[in-house]
Amino acid sequence: MKARITVTLKTGVLDPQGKAIEAALKSLGINGIEGVRQGKVFDLEVSTPDAASAQATLKAACEKLLANTVVENYAIEIA
Amino acid sequence: MKARITVTLKTGVLDPQGKAIEAALKSLGINGIEGVRQGKVFDLEVSTPDAASAQATLKAACEKLLANTVVENYAIEIA
Repeated sequence: MKARITVTLKTGVLDPQGKAIEAALKSLGINGIEGVRQGKVFDLEVSTPDAASAQATLKAACEKLLANTVVENYAIEIA
Repeated sequence: MKARITVTLKTGVLDPQGKAIEAALKSLGINGIEGVRQGKVFDLEVSTPDAASAQATLKAACEKLLANTVVENYAIEIA
């Protein structure tokens, strides 16, 4: 089955990359966008027998590799 | 209003970063995950008067800065 993991910075964690994008948008003449924060998205194909074990596998992947849980949140969606 | 832009690689475009993640997951003992593809997500705060102009602003941001439309697709969600 297909799954999507979204990793975003926790509230309060500085995001210089987002700030740079905000400034770049303004310098390109695109106004009205504020508070940009960048995250990561992973589209995965999971080959476990059921949704519960897929959820457990994906949680392990997030905790061990995909997200730094000190400063990042992750969300798992199984399609 | 809040918006989320998701930028993903088009089908058929090689994703060495995704392949590296796949290999890393296997070496960590997490099995059952295949076909990892990494993308980017942007959470933005839009200060335009209505949803139609927000959509137009975000489309311009994607086309001009956030996505390389030769190899990437983008999706805009307005919350």
